[in-house]
Amino acid sequence: MAMTGVLRPGHLQLRVLDIEKSRKFYRDIIGLVETGMDAQGRVYFKAWDERDHNSIILRQADRAGVDFIGFRVLNKLALDRLEQAVQEHGISTERIPAGDLLETGERVRFELPSGHPFEFYAEKTHIGNGLGMLNPRPWGAAADYGIAPTHFDHCLLYGPNLDATRKLFTEVLGFFLVERVLAPNEPIGGKDVAIWLSCSIKTHDIAFVEHAEPGKLHHVSFRMPSGERIQRAADILGMNKVPVDIGPTRHGITRGQTIYAWDPSGNRFETFTGDYEAYPDYEPITWTFDELGYGLDYSLGKLHETFLTVMT
Amino acid sequence: MAMTGVLRPGHLQLRVLDIEKSRKFYRDIIGLVETGMDAQGRVYFKAWDERDHNSIILRQADRAGVDFIGFRVLNKLALDRLEQAVQEHGISTERIPAGDLLETGERVRFELPSGHPFEFYAEKTHIGNGLGMLNPRPWGAAADYGIAPTHFDHCLLYGPNLDATRKLFTEVLGFFLVERVLAPNEPIGGKDVAIWLSCSIKTHDIAFVEHAEPGKLHHVSFRMPSGERIQRAADILGMNKVPVDIGPTRHGITRGQTIYAWDPSGNRFETFTGDYEAYPDYEPITWTFDELGYGLDYSLGKLHETFLTVMT
Amino acid sequence: MAMTGVLRPGHLQLRVLDIEKSRKFYRDIIGLVETGMDAQGRVYFKAWDERDHNSIILRQADRAGVDFIGFRVLNKLALDRLEQAVQEHGISTERIPAGDLLETGERVRFELPSGHPFEFYAEKTHIGNGLGMLNPRPWGAAADYGIAPTHFDHCLLYGPNLDATRKLFTEVLGFFLVERVLAPNEPIGGKDVAIWLSCSIKTHDIAFVEHAEPGKLHHVSFRMPSGERIQRAADILGMNKVPVDIGPTRHGITRGQTIYAWDPSGNRFETFTGDYEAYPDYEPITWTFDELGYGLDYSLGKLHETFLTVMT
Amino acid sequence: MAMTGVLRPGHLQLRVLDIEKSRKFYRDIIGLVETGMDAQGRVYFKAWDERDHNSIILRQADRAGVDFIGFRVLNKLALDRLEQAVQEHGISTERIPAGDLLETGERVRFELPSGHPFEFYAEKTHIGNGLGMLNPRPWGAAADYGIAPTHFDHCLLYGPNLDATRKLFTEVLGFFLVERVLAPNEPIGGKDVAIWLSCSIKTHDIAFVEHAEPGKLHHVSFRMPSGERIQRAADILGMNKVPVDIGPTRHGITRGQTIYAWDPSGNRFETFTGDYEAYPDYEPITWTFDELGYGLDYSLGKLHETFLTVMT
Repeated sequence: MAMTGVLRPGHLQLRVLDIEKSRKFYRDIIGLVETGMDAQGRVYFKAWDERDHNSIILRQADRAGVDFIGFRVLNKLALDRLEQAVQEHGISTERIPAGDLLETGERVRFELPSGHPFEFYAEKTHIGNGLGMLNPRPWGAAADYGIAPTHFDHCLLYGPNLDATRKLFTEVLGFFLVERVLAPNEPIGGKDVAIWLSCSIKTHDIAFVEHAEPGKLHHVSFRMPSGERIQRAADILGMNKVPVDIGPTRHGITRGQTIYAWDPSGNRFETFTGDYEAYPDYEPITWTFDELGYGLDYSLGKLHETFLTVMT
Repeated sequence: MAMTGVLRPGHLQLRVLDIEKSRKFYRDIIGLVETGMDAQGRVYFKAWDERDHNSIILRQADRAGVDFIGFRVLNKLALDRLEQAVQEHGISTERIPAGDLLETGERVRFELPSGHPFEFYAEKTHIGNGLGMLNPRPWGAAADYGIAPTHFDHCLLYGPNLDATRKLFTEVLGFFLVERVLAPNEPIGGKDVAIWLSCSIKTHDIAFVEHAEPGKLHHVSFRMPSGERIQRAADILGMNKVPVDIGPTRHGITRGQTIYAWDPSGNRFETFTGDYEAYPDYEPITWTFDELGYGLDYSLGKLHETFLTVMT
Repeated sequence: MAMTGVLRPGHLQLRVLDIEKSRKFYRDIIGLVETGMDAQGRVYFKAWDERDHNSIILRQADRAGVDFIGFRVLNKLALDRLEQAVQEHGISTERIPAGDLLETGERVRFELPSGHPFEFYAEKTHIGNGLGMLNPRPWGAAADYGIAPTHFDHCLLYGPNLDATRKLFTEVLGFFLVERVLAPNEPIGGKDVAIWLSCSIKTHDIAFVEHAEPGKLHHVSFRMPSGERIQRAADILGMNKVPVDIGPTRHGITRGQTIYAWDPSGNRFETFTGDYEAYPDYEPITWTFDELGYGLDYSLGKLHETFLTVMT
Repeated sequence: MAMTGVLRPGHLQLRVLDIEKSRKFYRDIIGLVETGMDAQGRVYFKAWDERDHNSIILRQADRAGVDFIGFRVLNKLALDRLEQAVQEHGISTERIPAGDLLETGERVRFELPSGHPFEFYAEKTHIGNGLGMLNPRPWGAAADYGIAPTHFDHCLLYGPNLDATRKLFTEVLGFFLVERVLAPNEPIGGKDVAIWLSCSIKTHDIAFVEHAEPGKLHHVSFRMPSGERIQRAADILGMNKVPVDIGPTRHGITRGQTIYAWDPSGNRFETFTGDYEAYPDYEPITWTFDELGYGLDYSLGKLHETFLTVMT
């Protein structure tokens, strides 16, 4: 948790081109747990080990991408203070009433310098992970259904104004910088093209890449419990002929093990595990642009073209 | 990090009966990195992926056990505020000057209701994990030397006044309760015999068991990167005929994979991995005493007698 | 395959005390695939990655244990030659007609010096592993149902006349000795109390321990695909409160990773993985009796009492 | 072992462009154990868990590739019989005297229809795996040095006359066909472009692809103990900027987990684990050419161009 009370990536609303096809995909292939549908036709999912009612919300739309990203905060006091801090930083906010999202309280929304709608909220109903609160088993059937990630882990967003975004997250919202990629030929400490930001001890709860067009989604990431389960995910993607972008491989950046693939609408998702413990007193790690290939795909050492060019 | 600025378990001073024998044990079998020896003859170690100068400190003594446990806090302001809060809670504190421990700043020390000397500090020199801060490799030779845990993860302490300890950690220091074991025949919400407390998203940064004698150590725990590395640790213990208490197995409590074994002085240590993500808004999980065997050793379902009777 | 044409452990008929309870156990907890029931009421199972119609056959009886063990041989010529060789070795054989076991051809049966009925057969219907023979997926739903071993791997039998048994297997049947345990205080090359025999490149396809009472079963072993799946098996045993004898741990003998547990009738079974490649030109490895604890449980180094005293 | 007494892939002599550079590569990055150098300057290696004196032999030459492949057979009788059978099949053989290769007995050499020199031999000195034959540890320091494969596992060879090669291996040498890839648009049972052949219970001890130019090497494969160690190998390749061709990924064909990469001379090697158990009575699995992408790289489903075009 950040000192500001920001807890975790809580929800992300994803635009999909065919809601029924996507619903089957996220339920049966990714293995998320479907928890509801609202009056607008949005479909709600959670990863099996999350306790909150929802984390991934699908909305049918004409183009793919992300509508907004929301982080859960500790309580209403933290929510009020964060709203005030954002406003004092010169960014206007709006309140979205409780109930707009199923089982979710009031949200404070504002636009990031990168052009992404971003939210904080203090309430979402706990429905549990299915194992109960008394003498629980370590896992159940949901842990083997589809790819079965444990959590919505983070997202990587593309947009302009990377420096302003970093400043907002690190100086106002309480995140800390964990890793950075320098622009080509920049000296250490120079201009970044990518940043990884944490509000926990994960290597990132959110990440950004400098990009001309605002509000773009590079990928939504799901946490896996082990490298063996990353390979199992790769197998399931192959069985279902899901288009895979990269992996399985290790990222040099964050050390995580990864697969990137695309959902039926062309939204990239990741299955992820194995990053290190990050702390706010740690100096950020720097990657030079010429080594970004190793940062992305540590064994191939290859800057896959799609990494910089394909997003939604 | 807790809202109070408590970051992580930072150091633990362990009493050992033969400093040279223990030094070899922690260096060559556990695979910690030796970082120094002070004028008193204390030997300093860090786990390979820690960036701070030291985490485990060995002191030769007539009896085994723990001298004190220290948590790193965000900065001096957090240190001052924590000191004040502890004092306002009615516990007296003392300041131990910078430099008493190698490469470590001023410490605020007080005694826990469980009888353990406990400390906060805001400064310990970062010496890094050996991989550098620029385009780092994911791991190096230290990751394969001995058992090679990545971090000092937590400790489990035995002592009296469990309720007062929980109150101090959760109401004053900013920790949250993750799991608890009820006393025999207690109803849910009743008196606990054991508690797991977190200041991060780990299932525990410290844990306590109710016990008549104050200030006792049950085990020091080291974080491992995977279940396969737990088995590798088990192999190394066997190769060196280190006395093993329990495991490898899974704890029902925290879901972690574990081995318990004893160092040459009889101090129990653990190698640990695979627990879940905990958050302060999550309701704590409760174990009934009759299921504690599964909480301890999920496959055997056995309350090993040593768990409750052997400590230092 | 042995030069004699002995291919693999093919079937084992197990006596169980309650056929319905055992059927559920082997189907839903072990995760074997039920393939039939015969007129006698025997229930047939295969492990998911086996292609033959059956491998484990349950028969209701008043006492637990093993009725017989059968190995598949290459063809009828190999069957005839093995029969002749066994007879020439002075052991009488009988032919059991095709169809006595479902989907299984004629069997040549004889009694081992250890008192166990033992069989060879050349025909059992291939029903496949469910993945098809054309562009197969690497695994399917059966690989995640219950513990889901891939194969019946071997069994360990207790009985008298260990030397005669070794001689039969190595000099007549074409097996080779992989590991041995010496009797207490025996010099190397002296009298064995346990032997591991292979007809493949596995460390054992069958194993024996010297024991006064003939025809006893120590355990039936199931092959797992990884150490992580051994831990998953341990979890499933815990979830179902199946009594576990030992493990998860590593055997020093064969290097395999293991769990021993008991079925509802008290028959011990094992989940097993990770042994090394054995070849007939390799000199056998020898264990001294005083190190048998490490041979059995490499991390604890403990000769669990049940290993020598509990069998069916 | 085949009924003919063929035991295992025993040695492979590899042509390298710079013997010193290659020596360092195979010793320090692959992690083979260097066991000798002969008067011709050839350098001998074994994988750590092999017991024979050597398996990979490097010879400095002007072009990369394979000089010959040798399989160990059970004994001199098997050697004589195999020689006779090869001659009766219409292929001339020659005897290479004992001692031509260090610690290796007389070899029977002949040319495969694919144009590769191929050998059988019955003697190579056992030097052991460093763990001893009495109460051995499960592994030692060599298991963590470099990539540290346990064995030279198989090779994949490119050359003409695939049908004749299959006939030789399955009808004369005692191997069995495990998997096959059909030529484009061929019906099942039609002409193959690739075959996987076993003389053990591995999915392949040798494999071939139809190719116009004779005697070509696609890759030398090394056995790894787990998928986690495949990822570790990938990390080591990245750390050393070794050019990686494909992976880590799963092969659909054989189900093995793999990385393909190139040595300093451009010879491709593989790290491999996780294939299934194959038996001579099993019907071969067939892949259609249009699914070869999944056969090669099960998650990407991509027929990497290099697979068919780059060899030595």
